[in-house]
Amino acid sequence: MTDIRDHFWCVIPAGGAGTRLWPLSRAGAPKFLHDLLGTGRTLIQSTVDRLEPLAGERLVVVTGARHVDAVAEQVPQVARERLLAEPSPRDSMAAIGWAAAVIERQDPGALIGSFAADHVVGEEERFRSLVEQAVAVAQEGYLVTLGIEPTYPATGFGYIREGDALDVPGAPEARAVVEFVEKPDVRTAESYLATGEFRWNAGMFVVKAGVLLDLLAQWHPDLAAGLRRIAADPALLEQEWETLERIAIDHAVAEPAAAAGRVAVVRCDVPWDDIGDFHSLATLLATAAAVESAEIGAAGSAGANGADDSTGANGARHDGRGDEHALHTVGTADVVSVDSTGIVASRTDRLVSIIGMDDVVVVDTPDALLVTTRGRAQHVKNVVDTLKASGRTDLT
Amino acid sequence: MTDIRDHFWCVIPAGGAGTRLWPLSRAGAPKFLHDLLGTGRTLIQSTVDRLEPLAGERLVVVTGARHVDAVAEQVPQVARERLLAEPSPRDSMAAIGWAAAVIERQDPGALIGSFAADHVVGEEERFRSLVEQAVAVAQEGYLVTLGIEPTYPATGFGYIREGDALDVPGAPEARAVVEFVEKPDVRTAESYLATGEFRWNAGMFVVKAGVLLDLLAQWHPDLAAGLRRIAADPALLEQEWETLERIAIDHAVAEPAAAAGRVAVVRCDVPWDDIGDFHSLATLLATAAAVESAEIGAAGSAGANGADDSTGANGARHDGRGDEHALHTVGTADVVSVDSTGIVASRTDRLVSIIGMDDVVVVDTPDALLVTTRGRAQHVKNVVDTLKASGRTDLT
Repeated sequence: MTDIRDHFWCVIPAGGAGTRLWPLSRAGAPKFLHDLLGTGRTLIQSTVDRLEPLAGERLVVVTGARHVDAVAEQVPQVARERLLAEPSPRDSMAAIGWAAAVIERQDPGALIGSFAADHVVGEEERFRSLVEQAVAVAQEGYLVTLGIEPTYPATGFGYIREGDALDVPGAPEARAVVEFVEKPDVRTAESYLATGEFRWNAGMFVVKAGVLLDLLAQWHPDLAAGLRRIAADPALLEQEWETLERIAIDHAVAEPAAAAGRVAVVRCDVPWDDIGDFHSLATLLATAAAVESAEIGAAGSAGANGADDSTGANGARHDGRGDEHALHTVGTADVVSVDSTGIVASRTDRLVSIIGMDDVVVVDTPDALLVTTRGRAQHVKNVVDTLKASGRTDLT
Repeated sequence: MTDIRDHFWCVIPAGGAGTRLWPLSRAGAPKFLHDLLGTGRTLIQSTVDRLEPLAGERLVVVTGARHVDAVAEQVPQVARERLLAEPSPRDSMAAIGWAAAVIERQDPGALIGSFAADHVVGEEERFRSLVEQAVAVAQEGYLVTLGIEPTYPATGFGYIREGDALDVPGAPEARAVVEFVEKPDVRTAESYLATGEFRWNAGMFVVKAGVLLDLLAQWHPDLAAGLRRIAADPALLEQEWETLERIAIDHAVAEPAAAAGRVAVVRCDVPWDDIGDFHSLATLLATAAAVESAEIGAAGSAGANGADDSTGANGARHDGRGDEHALHTVGTADVVSVDSTGIVASRTDRLVSIIGMDDVVVVDTPDALLVTTRGRAQHVKNVVDTLKASGRTDLT
């Protein structure tokens, strides 16, 4: 009997413009292509780094045609023929389903795990062991989701309501899924957290490629058939792609399959973030700096984030320790700050000077500058919408 | 008898880096070279425009050697030989005294008025009539200052305490000066305003050239003699200049002359501002926009300042009317803003997007960006000091 792990493939959908991270993230250079956390690796590179120990060379990236070259350059570990270029965006079911159909033809017994290119995951060893639990459950025919342990009553994610434990050997964290629920309001989210039965839906699925497509065929037979035709004859891509239904994988498969008792969840208790906006990026940077600071030791950590060299100016100086009361930087920003907290992201070599700003967000790029606060981070999208509406797509 | 107005010369000291307007104002391109109010004229151009009806071609500018070419280009009305280039900064007495000595040689009966190149003056007709009153008083041998009607208990200016009215024909606003007092604290400033006896010292003096130098000779004979030697033989400039005492005209002459009963004040009730920082610049822009708005009529004024084209973004839009609750721009800033007030100054063609910032100050230049608030406008100087201290004078 072959090891099922030799048939585990990772699919990395690399889509989404990351509009709320504008002007850092652009339609032409979306979030996943950026090193937002200053680790030296872009988000898609970190994603591949995280999954390679599980899948080896069995990595497939699905991305927009315009990003294929940038992705190929950033993650040479992914074979060129496993870099699938979408002619146009047709939502997550088409993207993941296409990869599933391609993998199914090459490896009929394949299991796939789908993980977005622009998420941040901590405790990677633990994460991989949880994926292996999901693989064990998927081997039993389930569509398995990794459900994130909620840390606050988020309104920006869908939730997964879990049921009884599943008795799958090697998968102690596996539970049945009762239902997927839409993004709640904050009151509802609080009630979810109070029950202890809910996990965030982070869009991470592990499933047999054939099971995914067969489930899809039950509720969206045309879409499943179209994807399998494209996989069988890549020459059909351009022609078939535009006819595919635009639908998210959650609605197309996860929700009806849950109702049919075909979905399981593996509780995922590692740190996770989708870096939805500059507020969460600032939190991540503060956390990372705090960890770094703790590792270095509190005494030696001043200036660890490079954000504050304002010694003497107005007599004020931050101690540079990673916390919410410091000014954090993305990239090689050249910053002089006085009495300020928040985040500065720079893609220029200009000096950025900030005086007396609390929770500020400053994003400095060659053609656009953003100044806002962490509290207004969600509204960055409105500026992008305004620019699009006025035809200034060169800036989006 | 010749008209004394044919012997009235205007001296325009063009010095001072305008550090609190950094990074717009730089050591290499100080405040007076900029069109800060969007009038289409730089501050020195506006100053010359304001004085030309009084002095005709009798205009002398004293500026640093590095700014002479820029000044010559901006104000071609000033004859090249009347553009005096200081080898190094030696404070206001040397600058104004040098001009006085040069003018004295050419026109022994000359009266001079000294007016800084970077101040803003409203109601120009009224202003010129007040200068003419000062000329009449100066003709009587007084050192005459134009004392600005205080509008708030400013702590950034010295004050002039006025005494009895002077009986000079054609100068109903003339008063004796009891004393000059230093910049007060806010409590003292409030007490000054309560008396009604105090005016702001804006450094505007009208005096016979010979009287000024003779007064100077009483208290600083070496300085007076040095300035007269340079005027007599320009070849001595480089050699003599470095030996001149560094002192402000207020300390050198105005204060001792006031004590000796030789100083008069003409009450100056026109709008005046020295644009000391971004807070006062924002106030001036708001006032200017309000005037423009009133002239246009309230209905047609939306977008008059070009600051806000954020229609639809977050449902919020300013009406563009000139008030303190709008976002005002300096230059041709390309701004998309949502729910923001304050000031944006741009020397780049980048898009500046601002969301949810109150009383913000954003200054965008090719090599440096400043983000602060109007309330912290005074602290901009601290950043410049920090840069200088770390040897980054290329940015100052």
